[in-house]
Amino acid sequence: MATHEVFNQAPPLTGFTAADEPALLDAVRRDGAGEGEAELRELGELAGSAETQELARQAEENPPRLRSHDRYGHRIDEVEFHPAWHSLMTTAVRHGLHAAPWAEPGAGAHLLRAAKFYVWSQAEAGHGCPVSMTYAAVPALRAEPALAALYEPLLASRVYDFGLRPPLGKAGLIAGMSMTEKQGGSDVRANTTRAVPDGGGDGTYRLTGHKWFTSAPMSDVFLTLAQTEEGVTCFLLPRVLPDGSRNALRLQRLKDKLGNRSNASSEIEYEDAVGWRVGEAGRGVRTIVEMVNMTRLDCVLGSAAAMRAGLRQALHHARHRRAFGAPLLEQPLMRNVLADLAVESEAATVLGLRLAAALDRSLAGDEREAALRRLGLAAGKYHVCKRGSAHVGEALECLGGNGYVEESGMPRLYREAPLLSLWEGSGNVAALDVLRAVAKDPATLDALLAEVDAAAGADRHLDAAVAALRKDLAVLSDPAAAQLAARRLAERLTLVLQGSLLVRHSTPAVADAFCASRLGGEWGHAYGTLPPGTDLGGVLERARA
Amino acid sequence: MATHEVFNQAPPLTGFTAADEPALLDAVRRDGAGEGEAELRELGELAGSAETQELARQAEENPPRLRSHDRYGHRIDEVEFHPAWHSLMTTAVRHGLHAAPWAEPGAGAHLLRAAKFYVWSQAEAGHGCPVSMTYAAVPALRAEPALAALYEPLLASRVYDFGLRPPLGKAGLIAGMSMTEKQGGSDVRANTTRAVPDGGGDGTYRLTGHKWFTSAPMSDVFLTLAQTEEGVTCFLLPRVLPDGSRNALRLQRLKDKLGNRSNASSEIEYEDAVGWRVGEAGRGVRTIVEMVNMTRLDCVLGSAAAMRAGLRQALHHARHRRAFGAPLLEQPLMRNVLADLAVESEAATVLGLRLAAALDRSLAGDEREAALRRLGLAAGKYHVCKRGSAHVGEALECLGGNGYVEESGMPRLYREAPLLSLWEGSGNVAALDVLRAVAKDPATLDALLAEVDAAAGADRHLDAAVAALRKDLAVLSDPAAAQLAARRLAERLTLVLQGSLLVRHSTPAVADAFCASRLGGEWGHAYGTLPPGTDLGGVLERARA
Repeated sequence: MATHEVFNQAPPLTGFTAADEPALLDAVRRDGAGEGEAELRELGELAGSAETQELARQAEENPPRLRSHDRYGHRIDEVEFHPAWHSLMTTAVRHGLHAAPWAEPGAGAHLLRAAKFYVWSQAEAGHGCPVSMTYAAVPALRAEPALAALYEPLLASRVYDFGLRPPLGKAGLIAGMSMTEKQGGSDVRANTTRAVPDGGGDGTYRLTGHKWFTSAPMSDVFLTLAQTEEGVTCFLLPRVLPDGSRNALRLQRLKDKLGNRSNASSEIEYEDAVGWRVGEAGRGVRTIVEMVNMTRLDCVLGSAAAMRAGLRQALHHARHRRAFGAPLLEQPLMRNVLADLAVESEAATVLGLRLAAALDRSLAGDEREAALRRLGLAAGKYHVCKRGSAHVGEALECLGGNGYVEESGMPRLYREAPLLSLWEGSGNVAALDVLRAVAKDPATLDALLAEVDAAAGADRHLDAAVAALRKDLAVLSDPAAAQLAARRLAERLTLVLQGSLLVRHSTPAVADAFCASRLGGEWGHAYGTLPPGTDLGGVLERARA
Repeated sequence: MATHEVFNQAPPLTGFTAADEPALLDAVRRDGAGEGEAELRELGELAGSAETQELARQAEENPPRLRSHDRYGHRIDEVEFHPAWHSLMTTAVRHGLHAAPWAEPGAGAHLLRAAKFYVWSQAEAGHGCPVSMTYAAVPALRAEPALAALYEPLLASRVYDFGLRPPLGKAGLIAGMSMTEKQGGSDVRANTTRAVPDGGGDGTYRLTGHKWFTSAPMSDVFLTLAQTEEGVTCFLLPRVLPDGSRNALRLQRLKDKLGNRSNASSEIEYEDAVGWRVGEAGRGVRTIVEMVNMTRLDCVLGSAAAMRAGLRQALHHARHRRAFGAPLLEQPLMRNVLADLAVESEAATVLGLRLAAALDRSLAGDEREAALRRLGLAAGKYHVCKRGSAHVGEALECLGGNGYVEESGMPRLYREAPLLSLWEGSGNVAALDVLRAVAKDPATLDALLAEVDAAAGADRHLDAAVAALRKDLAVLSDPAAAQLAARRLAERLTLVLQGSLLVRHSTPAVADAFCASRLGGEWGHAYGTLPPGTDLGGVLERARA
């Protein structure tokens, strides 16, 4: 250039394998999904390729658009996506990140799917929404076996077949979930949408009302809630009816969201829309919560993926950027920041994968694992997703001003992060769900603490934290006090579980750093505050491997 | 509506007085700016008006555009702004948020200006950038009295006079700062831009090189750094030369930033641009650091403003929204979240205003106040700005999914927050500056601790935290260990200072909650984790007043 030379900028970070992470691969092998390692690596390579990075950028820079009417003025309620979106969706479906594990059960099937979702989410998070919902719809749909028999094979199909056509004639389906109303939010029992039996003798209902947030409105079918005479009931609504006509789901507008911009979220109205009842009338919340408990796992995995993606960028930048005479990676305070991020990233990853393994085992009939999953997921959804924004924001700052500019990709991670804490019930809903889980079934607490105790005696900070927590759990007997303390309880349950997993499965450097800081109180209120004596080099070596 | 009724949504929050905050008004009265209260209230009303909220929205939704050439192909390097931007700038300048206090000195002049900046920033943060830089340019410019005599009156003028014309013929000027280069970032001594004496005998230099981040590129004059034979030197560059021709500052492109979108930031190249030397040749860093220390105060105030703006929205929503049978504001866990946000918001506000008062007193010759300001600003810039994102993110979540949608205004706060931590040196630079301040002048530490000790004996958590901190300050004698611990030190210095201010000047509810949680360790790693026994009602009452 005429005026200056360009130097001391990091090169682009492409051509890596997103699956190449010891914590991930160890967990996959440990919990019975090792046979899928080759598939996982293949997807990891795809996630780290320059081509996929371009698709991710294009999908966000060209967000979906609502086409409410055709050129002649007919209502069409279509959403148009950029080809990059469809390409990302095709890969996700081909690799079975959606409902495939339900059709191909086996030891480690859900763990492998979780690992893949984690790896692929690092490339682009927005399209994870319909992928997760399609995955999560199956357990809810099974409340109505006849419908499940029809739809499951198509939801599990490895073909992504976009477009509004009668679902049962398509080669593969995407499912959505439509719960939140304007007045109700998480309080779905306050929903006003009404469903009345159709009277035609085919078991269908007619729905009238609205939904305030309906993500992925181009999905083929939706699970939704509506009031019947028996109470809140779950329904399956196809976008297109068997006769090829549009079901009366009117898209009012797309949400102009902070992030998640490659994905469409909409406000919709039902104008006598046709729905098929799923599960018992009046038991809709119990039915759809099966779906929510699946998507909550993906919220944890998605947050872990964002942490890992941000950390990778921060490490890369620090390795290549020099300031004040040395690479950033060699400067003590920056090392503290990076190691602190790495420790929490690994803790999030091992927790998400452990919960996925618990799902596999609970599906195989292991009740203790089911109990662990129930409580661990509520607590983990609260804590890991809550930490996501802070983690990604710190990684962004590691890149300096460059991290604040769109080209770095960091803004995309930062915008996405709060959504994972909001989805499927915001932080308070998740934290209060911890109380609900224990109140309903104290075995969930026993199962979680038993899992934590598998590491008993190995780390003094962990032991002390568990002892203190056991004592403080007495608060659970006082509902008002427990509510007030619900976030702190959810956090502590998550932290001792993460600590136990790291002590058993990670390196001493990572486990020590985690337990001293998160459990031992030797920590500040921001990253980069690991205590003196921490083996930063050991932590960074594992994170960079 | 045909399909449903809309209810249980909060009404719009408009028509409030942003200055109506006890912590703010108390500080203004306490530290000698009480005479300005009427002006402050007037600006606060403007900030809370529906009209200003519309301007803020429009300014962000219509970001500035670079017009590099005119229709005939001539280079023009102009940036076109939406009228809403100019309207916001006009108000800011009319109310003297820029360089006015330098022209109208007096007890409390800078404190009043800080209070106004804090109040008005709550309305729209983006235009605060050129306003801050214009404010901050004066102390640096004074290193060259002849230039200062020419430019100061125009920088302090209450007229906003936009457009590229010779600066000395305008009715009012805006100043920018241009430091960061591609290879250097915060390490400005690595800058490669060169300046050579013009040889024409008028004391001007010719600059060749580039700047990687130049905010507010439509400013009339810039302070910038370039290498001369004597070393890094500070220069004043006008955008338009006295003869009316454009100075050779070429705008390459505008940055596509995560937030701060109403404001323009650019990459520029100097092609033999004309500059006037400011201060001694080779002492450029020392000269421009006078400017940086002013803008750092605005970073603290800006973060405090964002916290307050987010908190106000969260409180408003919680007051009007019901879920699960009760207003959110009456639900224990939500009260914990809101009170936790309120406590930290007030701590940020009182700190920012205390540092502004220290500026007033140090300008009047008080050395202890100058020392307090030096260290308190470095530590506070680190900690308050670092917490900004987490705080705003939590406030966003209080609104549920609505908070994630642009119409709520919360995304704008969330996107802006990381910038305040990055600006004027990212977190690590600010934390390491704490070490530098103490190493260079131990009196800064004495001054800060003396200020903290004014509250000695009043709160056991504060006393214990100060005692522990005093002990741990021994680490300062070991440079490598001190670097590693710099963030934690900066945080603790800030927290004891904030604790002392709250103990002396806020209500017992706020002070107790702050000291127990931030200093006493009775806190979690997210908001909403204030300990049992906290007077949440007392905290919320003060926050809502």
